[in-house]
Amino acid sequence: MALAAIERLAHHIATLPGIGERSAFRLAMHLFYSEPTSRAQFAEALSSLTDGITLCPRCHNLTDSGGLCEICRDASRDSKTICVVEEYIDLISIEETHEYNGSYHVLHGLIEPMKGVGVNDIKLTELIARVGSEPIEELIIAFDAGLPGDTTANYIAKQVAETGVRISRIAYGLSLGSDIEHADSRTLARSIAGRTPL
Amino acid sequence: MALAAIERLAHHIATLPGIGERSAFRLAMHLFYSEPTSRAQFAEALSSLTDGITLCPRCHNLTDSGGLCEICRDASRDSKTICVVEEYIDLISIEETHEYNGSYHVLHGLIEPMKGVGVNDIKLTELIARVGSEPIEELIIAFDAGLPGDTTANYIAKQVAETGVRISRIAYGLSLGSDIEHADSRTLARSIAGRTPL
Repeated sequence: MALAAIERLAHHIATLPGIGERSAFRLAMHLFYSEPTSRAQFAEALSSLTDGITLCPRCHNLTDSGGLCEICRDASRDSKTICVVEEYIDLISIEETHEYNGSYHVLHGLIEPMKGVGVNDIKLTELIARVGSEPIEELIIAFDAGLPGDTTANYIAKQVAETGVRISRIAYGLSLGSDIEHADSRTLARSIAGRTPL
Repeated sequence: MALAAIERLAHHIATLPGIGERSAFRLAMHLFYSEPTSRAQFAEALSSLTDGITLCPRCHNLTDSGGLCEICRDASRDSKTICVVEEYIDLISIEETHEYNGSYHVLHGLIEPMKGVGVNDIKLTELIARVGSEPIEELIIAFDAGLPGDTTANYIAKQVAETGVRISRIAYGLSLGSDIEHADSRTLARSIAGRTPL
């Protein structure tokens, strides 16, 4: 209905998660009226997004340095502890807490047979190899709560059981500042099961 | 915190209305993992967005045909009736009702002294000139409810008072405070049909 160029952009915006067709059209119009320079920079940021970004050969974090990632190259970080995450975005979230100073391992997925994702489709073999070859003392499993996270955590636990490496999983429970009366039953059940001694 | 290329894209996404920094980052990651081809097409749609788009010299609708817009060129449309709108997006919303077969006039703004927008900053003189030179019988004012809409409608009513042109304003079945672009087509069609004389 609208001009082809605007419809085309709105179509691309509407492919983004959580943005409907109506919002996409309004965002396209907002961009239409925005500064040509900033629109050109936006387009450039989009088209060059993945340029020069590779996976760290050790922890499979994203990196733009061509070799080991910034975290693996940082000698001040504890390389005896590995925090295992599903995705890059999880690593970024944990980094933003400024509470963790170990290294990472990014699986780029979780075991999900229903979606056709098996052990060899994610960086699991690479994790087990690291546990065998590096002086690792602890693995902290930091997955979203849910079946794929449970399955993958159990798989890792079995694989490293013989090595003597400590393995733990982040605590699931009530968010800070949230009320018991508003928590969903599964979260509440999990936080009761995972209670810690006072 | 994240890689520069991802942060840069997230920054541009976060300039869009209604998208916070956290969402922007997630959308940037979604785009990072999307098909390179579709990302390139998205970037191309963005950088070429306004290419070849001009204002129709008659109604000031956006057009990519280089001269009169598609609506002004359509002989089946009633050129004796002009629907006056603030923005292109309002014209598109009215077209989507499929209830209006007249022509348009896009003001590209409303009189808003508080924002420094006066009579000469929008396409008002051009509208009055059309009323003087074209065989216009009716003006339908279709502005968002609110002071700028009232001010602009009253200004137009005064300017054309002597011409004998009928002037009406869409009926506000729209709830006060809502925008034309957010109204559903049926409500909008209803308010066009129920327009009242000024």
